[in-house]
Amino acid sequence: MTGSVHVKDTVPNHQDLLDAYTRVKPFVHRTPVFKSETLDQIAGCTLYFKCENLQKVGAFKYRGATNAVLQLSETERACGVATHSSGNHGQALAKAAQVNGIASNIVMPNNAPQVKVDAIKGYGGNVTFCEPTLAARESTLKKVLDQTGAVEIHPYNNYKIIAGASTAAQEFLEQQTNLDILLTPVGGGGLLSGTCLTAHYLNPNIEVWAAEPKNVNDAFLSLKAGKIIPAPSTPTIADGLKTSLGSRNFKIIKEHVYGVLTCTEEEIISAMKLIWQRLKLVVEPSSATVLAVVLKNPALFHDKNVGLIISGGNIDTS
Amino acid sequence: MTGSVHVKDTVPNHQDLLDAYTRVKPFVHRTPVFKSETLDQIAGCTLYFKCENLQKVGAFKYRGATNAVLQLSETERACGVATHSSGNHGQALAKAAQVNGIASNIVMPNNAPQVKVDAIKGYGGNVTFCEPTLAARESTLKKVLDQTGAVEIHPYNNYKIIAGASTAAQEFLEQQTNLDILLTPVGGGGLLSGTCLTAHYLNPNIEVWAAEPKNVNDAFLSLKAGKIIPAPSTPTIADGLKTSLGSRNFKIIKEHVYGVLTCTEEEIISAMKLIWQRLKLVVEPSSATVLAVVLKNPALFHDKNVGLIISGGNIDTS
Repeated sequence: MTGSVHVKDTVPNHQDLLDAYTRVKPFVHRTPVFKSETLDQIAGCTLYFKCENLQKVGAFKYRGATNAVLQLSETERACGVATHSSGNHGQALAKAAQVNGIASNIVMPNNAPQVKVDAIKGYGGNVTFCEPTLAARESTLKKVLDQTGAVEIHPYNNYKIIAGASTAAQEFLEQQTNLDILLTPVGGGGLLSGTCLTAHYLNPNIEVWAAEPKNVNDAFLSLKAGKIIPAPSTPTIADGLKTSLGSRNFKIIKEHVYGVLTCTEEEIISAMKLIWQRLKLVVEPSSATVLAVVLKNPALFHDKNVGLIISGGNIDTS
Repeated sequence: MTGSVHVKDTVPNHQDLLDAYTRVKPFVHRTPVFKSETLDQIAGCTLYFKCENLQKVGAFKYRGATNAVLQLSETERACGVATHSSGNHGQALAKAAQVNGIASNIVMPNNAPQVKVDAIKGYGGNVTFCEPTLAARESTLKKVLDQTGAVEIHPYNNYKIIAGASTAAQEFLEQQTNLDILLTPVGGGGLLSGTCLTAHYLNPNIEVWAAEPKNVNDAFLSLKAGKIIPAPSTPTIADGLKTSLGSRNFKIIKEHVYGVLTCTEEEIISAMKLIWQRLKLVVEPSSATVLAVVLKNPALFHDKNVGLIISGGNIDTS
C-alpha cells in the first residue's frame, strides 16, 4: 500500500494522546461516572466507575476503532479495514467504519453466536467465516486482506488502538480530578496500556493497576518473567480476558503498571452481582474483575480515590 | 394524634406538586435520562428512559417516602412512621426516615427474602414479622401503630406519596422538553397518578398512558368498569404490579389517563432483555412493561417523543 513505509510505529507520546482525544471526541459517548455509597462502605475506599459499558457498541473498544479509522489515508479508506474478531472489537470496527462511510471485513469463527454475527452485519460489516482456531482466523484474514487490500486493524496490538483506548482514562481524569488509582481489566492489554500512558503523561501521581482472572493470569506471569507468557487455555467466565498480551501493549505495561492483581471465578461473579445490584448496571464478567480485586485487597486501596474502568456490558442474556 | 383533624386529604393541586418538587429535591437523585438509537429504530419512535432504577434505594418510591417524611409535625416525628411492605416502599420509607433522624417500623411477611429484611434493617428500620397474608399484615400494622403512635405511610394510597411520586415526571419534563407521551407502569397507582397530575398541571398536551401485565390487568378493567376492580391473583413476573389500585390513585387516574395497555409475560421478558442489552441497565420486570406495550402498539406511538419512566431496578440476582 502507498505510504506504508512512512507509518509511525512508536509508543504514542503526550501529544499523540491528546490528538486522539480531540479526534475521537465528536464520535464517542462521553460516558458517565457512577458511584455507590454502599459499595464504598463495603470496599473501605471511594470508588468511581467509568461506564464504558455505556459506550457505543457497549464497550471501550469503539474508542480505539474510531481513532484508527479516522487516521486512514484516502487510498486506505477506499480499500476499507479488516480484522478477525468474535467479540467487541469486530462490532466496534464495523460501526466505526460504517459511521465514516468505509467498508469493513470481519473474519469470524463459524461457531460465533448468531447475535454477534447479526450485530456486525447490522453495522454493515462483510463477514467471512472460518474454522474456530487461531490459525484459521489468521490465514483467512490474510486471504481477505490480499483480496480487498484492506488495512488490518488489530484489536489491541496497535498504537492507534492504544491511543484511542487511552481516551477513556483521559475523559475520566477530566470528570474526576481526585483519583489516586486507576484500575482496568487486562486481556490483550489495549485498555491497560492506554490507561498507563494517560496516567504517565497527564498525572504521574496516579497508580495504574490491572485485574485479571486467576485462571488466565498471563499478565501477572508476564510481568514477573519480564517477557510475554502466553495465556493458558483454562476456562474463565471473563471471556474477554482470555487473550495473551500484545508486544506493543506489554512494552508500555511493563514500564508503567504498578501491578496486576488476580481474582477467582467466584470473586468475579460476586463482584458482578454487586455491580448489578448496587449500580443497576449491566457489566461483562471481564469488567467485574476490577471490583473483585479491590474487595480482595482492601489494604492496597484503603481510603483512596479509586477509578475503575468498566470495559463493557455485552453479555448473553439468554 | 394532635392535629389529625386538620390534615388535608384532597387531590394535590398545582402548587402542592411544585412544593413537593422543591421539598424532595435536596434529598433525591436527579436521575438521568437514557436513550438508544437501536431501540428507537425497533420502536419506530423516539424513546426517553427516565432512570428511577438509579434513584436511591433503586426505585422511584424514595421520592414519595421522602415527601411524606419531610411533612411530619414535630410530634409526629417523635413517634416515627410505619407501614407494611415486602418491597421497595419498605426500604424507601426506612431510608427516608433514617436520613431525617426519625424511627421507622416496617411490618414484613415472615417469608420475605432475607436480603430485603437486611436492607430495611440496614436503613435502621424496626422490622416486625407477620404471617404472609394481607389480613395479618394489616392487623400487625395496626398493633404496631397502637404501640408506637407512629404515622402510617401507605405505599401509594396517600396524597403525599402521590405528590412525591409526581416529582419523577416533573424532573423528566425539565430534562426533556419535547415529550408527547408519558408512560408508566401501574400497580397500586402511585407513580401513574403522580405522573397524571404532572402532565395535567405542567403540560396538558402530554398524553399519559399506563402499562400493566395482562395477567394482572385490574387497572385496565377498573377504567372500563368505572370502579376499582381488585387485582386477580394470577402470577406475573412483574411482581411490583400485583397490587390493586388505591382509591385516591384511581380518582386521579380515571380523570386523566389516556389509557392502560397490557402485555404478556413473554413480552415483558423480551422487553427487559432489550433494555439490559441496549441500555445496559438493570431494571425490574415491572419497569419493562412500558417498553413492552410500546413495541406491541407501534401505531399509537409512531414518530412520537415517548417518555418512559423506569420505576425501579431491584431484582433478585441469585
